[in-house]
Amino acid sequence: MDVIATIQEMQERSDKLRAAGRTIALVPTMGFLHEGHLELMRAGKQHADELIISIFVNPTQFGPGEDVDRYPRDTKGDLQKARSVGVDVVFMPSAEEMYPDRFQTRVQVEDLPHHLCGLSRPGHFDGVATVVAKLFNITRPHLAVFGQKDYQQLAVISRMVMDLNMDIRILGVPTVREPDGLAMSSRNSYLSPEERRSALGLKKSIDLANELLRTGERRAKTITDAVRSLILSHPFTDIDYVALCDPVTLETLDALEEETLLALAVRVGKTRLIDNCLLRKASDQ
Amino acid sequence: MDVIATIQEMQERSDKLRAAGRTIALVPTMGFLHEGHLELMRAGKQHADELIISIFVNPTQFGPGEDVDRYPRDTKGDLQKARSVGVDVVFMPSAEEMYPDRFQTRVQVEDLPHHLCGLSRPGHFDGVATVVAKLFNITRPHLAVFGQKDYQQLAVISRMVMDLNMDIRILGVPTVREPDGLAMSSRNSYLSPEERRSALGLKKSIDLANELLRTGERRAKTITDAVRSLILSHPFTDIDYVALCDPVTLETLDALEEETLLALAVRVGKTRLIDNCLLRKASDQ
Repeated sequence: MDVIATIQEMQERSDKLRAAGRTIALVPTMGFLHEGHLELMRAGKQHADELIISIFVNPTQFGPGEDVDRYPRDTKGDLQKARSVGVDVVFMPSAEEMYPDRFQTRVQVEDLPHHLCGLSRPGHFDGVATVVAKLFNITRPHLAVFGQKDYQQLAVISRMVMDLNMDIRILGVPTVREPDGLAMSSRNSYLSPEERRSALGLKKSIDLANELLRTGERRAKTITDAVRSLILSHPFTDIDYVALCDPVTLETLDALEEETLLALAVRVGKTRLIDNCLLRKASDQ
Repeated sequence: MDVIATIQEMQERSDKLRAAGRTIALVPTMGFLHEGHLELMRAGKQHADELIISIFVNPTQFGPGEDVDRYPRDTKGDLQKARSVGVDVVFMPSAEEMYPDRFQTRVQVEDLPHHLCGLSRPGHFDGVATVVAKLFNITRPHLAVFGQKDYQQLAVISRMVMDLNMDIRILGVPTVREPDGLAMSSRNSYLSPEERRSALGLKKSIDLANELLRTGERRAKTITDAVRSLILSHPFTDIDYVALCDPVTLETLDALEEETLLALAVRVGKTRLIDNCLLRKASDQ
């Protein structure tokens, strides 16, 4: 496994791989890898000859109140984990390498960020789209893998790829959960043991929504009210949003469609957690 | 020479060319080709194995007051001219092919458009950067060729390519002029014979600025005043801007540097014309 820090070296490596007819999968990460990331990597490995991951805590996707310096890091552990799943190349640039003086270009998906997390994190998805566009041009993948846990991010990136005609397949991988149901996230490391217990309310509320759906409930308000109550019945919780929305446009729905996205963002103590689920009417769900 | 209308076919063609080890030059145009465009194509031909041009009147770079439908077109003449300089592929998509329903991604260079043409054409350079990013992903060139006449456009695209790490060389080609000095432009076709004479004021004022520089003048205001007076001494003229600025940042300068960009935008009748020149202090200029 090679670790590459410069853009030029990474581009040369990818060019060489492509020229040799090798297919490339990219898994972009901000490091502090957990089983969710490793699952993305296994999926990438399965669909391409070469697996590149990037580890870069991207400053431009953090807002003014969000402390990029506080984001957890563990380079040594990350490299061990990457090696264990057969990563071929780790691209790990510095912030100066990615954003030199006079940097001033932004890739902006315009409508999708006006929903869900975009509302409380202005500029976040511009930062995500821009850095991912850069990483795509640097690593030149045939396939890029993202977690469905960050549903809106996956939607924004898929839209960008379509709109800008990037010839890259985007693969979304289902959320990996702890045995008790908590969606894996690097941010879970911030939780105290008590907060960790309260955080289970997210997955429980998703299960409740599915149960209501199964019993015939179709009114969005009834479901979101139930979800809210269940989450808030746990201490330390503060709801950012509970939304039922169109899985493509992310627009809020009043009544459930064939497929409806239930998306949640909840502060548990000071830690903001997200989770989501595609609610499907079909009887086989 | 092949004419390709769909994105998919164009991408497949470019992939095939690249896989065969051929280098690709792209000349993006809005059609109504003149000698200036053909010069870009000759430069492209000289530096690459395969020459692709695009002909696409991009609606997103026209502002509300600028009539995209009025932009001159001559597809038959364009194809003849393209053939005459040895173009290999003409990519000529429809607006629907380039901007399907739900299209919503914008590439935005942030600082450079806050000068010169960007001030009177808000959103113009976003439209340019976005369509060029798309064309790059569709035609996958090693080299792309632009005219120095559209200096700010060249600066914006060069910045985008650097910032987004696109592995594409940008080549700027000197402005081609009519025998009497008028910079070639598709928009010259709008000019009446009288306006056509007045339009010569642009090049004459550039010559005057160079003459002032040669005689030791360094004050920006003195030079721009002289340029303005000369232009306005011609009937039908109305100045949008006359600027002396840093050739990299496009920021206005009070005194001339080693290299200073003189940039002009002038309405002659209803037609907006631009021209520019790099003023160089060096004695060998």
